[in-house]
Amino acid sequence: MNMSGLCQSQGELILQVKASIMFLTSWCAYSKKRKDEFSLSIILRTRLIDICGCDIYYLQGYKDQAEFLRSGLYKWEGDARTFDKDGPYIEVVTSPNNPDGTIREAVVNLGEGKLVYDLAYYWPQYTPITHPLDHDIMLFTFSKCTGHAGSRIGWALVKDKEVARKMTEYMQISSIGVSKESQLRAAKILGVLSEGCQHFRTADSENFFEYGHRIMRERWESLQNVVENSKIFSLPKFPQDYCNFTGKYTDSNPAFAWLHSKEDIDWESLLREHKIIGRSGERFGADPKYVRISMFSPPETFNLFLERLSAIIDNTNGNVVGGEESSIIK
Amino acid sequence: MNMSGLCQSQGELILQVKASIMFLTSWCAYSKKRKDEFSLSIILRTRLIDICGCDIYYLQGYKDQAEFLRSGLYKWEGDARTFDKDGPYIEVVTSPNNPDGTIREAVVNLGEGKLVYDLAYYWPQYTPITHPLDHDIMLFTFSKCTGHAGSRIGWALVKDKEVARKMTEYMQISSIGVSKESQLRAAKILGVLSEGCQHFRTADSENFFEYGHRIMRERWESLQNVVENSKIFSLPKFPQDYCNFTGKYTDSNPAFAWLHSKEDIDWESLLREHKIIGRSGERFGADPKYVRISMFSPPETFNLFLERLSAIIDNTNGNVVGGEESSIIK
Repeated sequence: MNMSGLCQSQGELILQVKASIMFLTSWCAYSKKRKDEFSLSIILRTRLIDICGCDIYYLQGYKDQAEFLRSGLYKWEGDARTFDKDGPYIEVVTSPNNPDGTIREAVVNLGEGKLVYDLAYYWPQYTPITHPLDHDIMLFTFSKCTGHAGSRIGWALVKDKEVARKMTEYMQISSIGVSKESQLRAAKILGVLSEGCQHFRTADSENFFEYGHRIMRERWESLQNVVENSKIFSLPKFPQDYCNFTGKYTDSNPAFAWLHSKEDIDWESLLREHKIIGRSGERFGADPKYVRISMFSPPETFNLFLERLSAIIDNTNGNVVGGEESSIIK
Repeated sequence: MNMSGLCQSQGELILQVKASIMFLTSWCAYSKKRKDEFSLSIILRTRLIDICGCDIYYLQGYKDQAEFLRSGLYKWEGDARTFDKDGPYIEVVTSPNNPDGTIREAVVNLGEGKLVYDLAYYWPQYTPITHPLDHDIMLFTFSKCTGHAGSRIGWALVKDKEVARKMTEYMQISSIGVSKESQLRAAKILGVLSEGCQHFRTADSENFFEYGHRIMRERWESLQNVVENSKIFSLPKFPQDYCNFTGKYTDSNPAFAWLHSKEDIDWESLLREHKIIGRSGERFGADPKYVRISMFSPPETFNLFLERLSAIIDNTNGNVVGGEESSIIK
């Protein structure tokens, strides 16, 4: 598969073993450059940068990861929009974003900052590939490309050779090398993807990304059909855009549905009562009126989810949830 | 497969995703118990505990891992034999040990210590399973059991429920959960191992552990035959012992050969000149007269290694290494 359609870089290509480790890697690679002062003034930016003026959403887990070991190398700083401290910082831009699927850009733009683009979801099955990206540090992973999260394989495109060298050094320390098992599996996956794309746009058969896009589109249409019956629930709206990979105008089909309720709802309890597992917006630094639902479940599970969500919507439209004697809507 | 032959515990069973993370997990689980004072006095013990009075050997990588992020939660303290500080500490006992394959026990035995047993290599293909282990915290991994290092799956047997809960909490934070891909692969591997052991000691066919033991034994015998021709090189000697798993007296067949030279040698350069990749003893906190060689390479690679090592031994016996004009023996 020719990667140049997705991103351009003249820099280094680095194999990684774990996305979350890679974030620390790049943070540390940068902060070590400022060794003389990092213990006082190294400041890191939030994983999530919002350019729409709405609430910020990020995985609470990243904040916990950054803070748990009480490292002397970096510090989690929270919302990028309000960041105004002097000194070096790192802004992590996750685009498309998890949980809400939006395309993001940097917002801080102060002198001593470094940008790390997390492009885990920048694949044509999820979002139109609108243009070749050309950022200084760009992270990719098999995890969201093919679903091989457990193989812990990804890569980084890095323009500055010295930053790339330090990232490689950190990876070596943190992982003691990438195992042969993972390398063999990654090579096999790349081979299969590449083979499927060789006759791209000429053969009748679908390649992996076309197949993925079709499945995701079908699921999103089914979900949108269910949710549009609701008086209080809604889904984000994404504009169609031209995808350079497929050569067509395509829709966004994010990996997660970011469901919103007009009314105050204890989402997790409501869903659990109907045997659906979701994650409250509170776990993403967002309002509890939001909930994140995975669009990745097996087909029969996804269909069950739609059935059960329909039942919830029927109940909430009638303003009765959970039987006659109880109401979860607060 | 019935695990009770290998280790006994009344405590918790925890799935892990990464051995090195698990070490930090258990460290942190303990150190958080002493939250009031950890920033000043939490002290951790070396990964490697020696009861033989010889040099200590441990992977330099573990020291680097423990120190790199400058955590406020723990501190690497070095050689366990000389540790005499007051306050809480954690002693990590790797048994059998990497790189030298020896069976290890704790040596510090001070009041406020916790022991973590790393049993990655305590499998019958490497060492006789002499007795059921019954330590407070015991770590296992598929990595060395079946070679699936890249799947990042292991488990811990932990007696104290509160420690187990904290380890689980840390794992959740550090890994954001164990991926379905890894879980599915681990379940498949366990199924295959279990099936192979069902008719253990009754069927003619070898189960996985018998097969592994036979291959490792053949390799060790071949290597011992080559090394015994050397005037200056030697291998560690391990006593036979009764293995409760196989019901026989068996030899130790460590995953690595820990080759020793009577004379000062620049091992890595000497091996590289003969197209062998080894790791100098210096990388394990040991004397540079030692080198670690993997016993895991593919069959044709292992045979090439034996041929090339024979050539080195022929040269060193004649006291000429690397041709007439150069000598690597210092």
